[in-house]
Amino acid sequence: MDTYNWNSSFSVGFNLQNGFSDSAVTTKRHLSQMKSMYSDTDAVHEILEKEDPLIYEFHELGAPERAGDLAFGTTILYPGRIGQEYYMTKGHFHKHLETAEVYYTLQGEGFMMLENPEGDTMEMPLRKGEALYVPRRYAHRSVNTGDTPLVMFFTFAADAGHDYGTIETRGFRKILVERNGKPEAEDNPEWEAL
Amino acid sequence: MDTYNWNSSFSVGFNLQNGFSDSAVTTKRHLSQMKSMYSDTDAVHEILEKEDPLIYEFHELGAPERAGDLAFGTTILYPGRIGQEYYMTKGHFHKHLETAEVYYTLQGEGFMMLENPEGDTMEMPLRKGEALYVPRRYAHRSVNTGDTPLVMFFTFAADAGHDYGTIETRGFRKILVERNGKPEAEDNPEWEAL
Repeated sequence: MDTYNWNSSFSVGFNLQNGFSDSAVTTKRHLSQMKSMYSDTDAVHEILEKEDPLIYEFHELGAPERAGDLAFGTTILYPGRIGQEYYMTKGHFHKHLETAEVYYTLQGEGFMMLENPEGDTMEMPLRKGEALYVPRRYAHRSVNTGDTPLVMFFTFAADAGHDYGTIETRGFRKILVERNGKPEAEDNPEWEAL
Repeated sequence: MDTYNWNSSFSVGFNLQNGFSDSAVTTKRHLSQMKSMYSDTDAVHEILEKEDPLIYEFHELGAPERAGDLAFGTTILYPGRIGQEYYMTKGHFHKHLETAEVYYTLQGEGFMMLENPEGDTMEMPLRKGEALYVPRRYAHRSVNTGDTPLVMFFTFAADAGHDYGTIETRGFRKILVERNGKPEAEDNPEWEAL
């Protein structure tokens, strides 16, 4: 990983088609790292007996968690399903809850699943050439409902932090599954109130 | 202009090639609105006698100046020169000086001119498929040194605010001019200490 000086200016390439970066840090998430997040446990085990598919990866720069700085990078979410549930990211709240995030979709299609601590939920379409606003207070998870990688350029306040734990423990209230060839949001049977 | 609810999620299209948006607010800057910013006063007058060229435009969403929100949009800077000086944006400090900005170049090529209140200056290349980090404290102006529009997707903290006045009054310390067919940064003869 290159080390960047966040008190100075620097440039980082992110391919406008596939989202890859030669100089950012790449983090990969395979099914085994998020197996408890998918609702169809049998499908998870069946797949993991044969292989451990790459679900998504993100390219980021290790921004300091410092007020006034911005973190940015790309997410590449591959197409596929675990049972009827589409490939998705882990999803997270920001530790500093009152911070927004901007996603600009470079390729592919899908949905952003959002929910706030009070239980309000939204499913917002992600489409190539559209910027999606994730408001303050909303946990967010992207879901690929297309046949090609879903590629997004993201920016958020560097001191927002990430709270993955809440979602890991309770799940999202809604899941996105294929029904009759189309994505449908349904209540998550595994969701647990904290 | 559409009115957006920044407490909720919304999507806005920004064309990945030309940066245009059907739903964002478009602000246009013609030469007559920034004529005192170019160093070659004779060239400015000569051009304005015949026409008032569009130098750049930006597409944005009127984000509230509220902590935790993010403003975003596109800038489209046209190719051309006023005398030997390339077309450029007005440039600004953030009112809240300690806030960064991210520019992701979608098309074209040029430079970002940066300077902080202490007088440190930088000229950073802008290239298609590269994200440029503008650090906290730095005024920034983009300059188009290519033959096609320079198109950038930008994001910054919504409460950063803009201070255009400092640059309007004193100018940037450096200007970018064509010398022997190539861009060169030179001291701005019009620069004034405040």
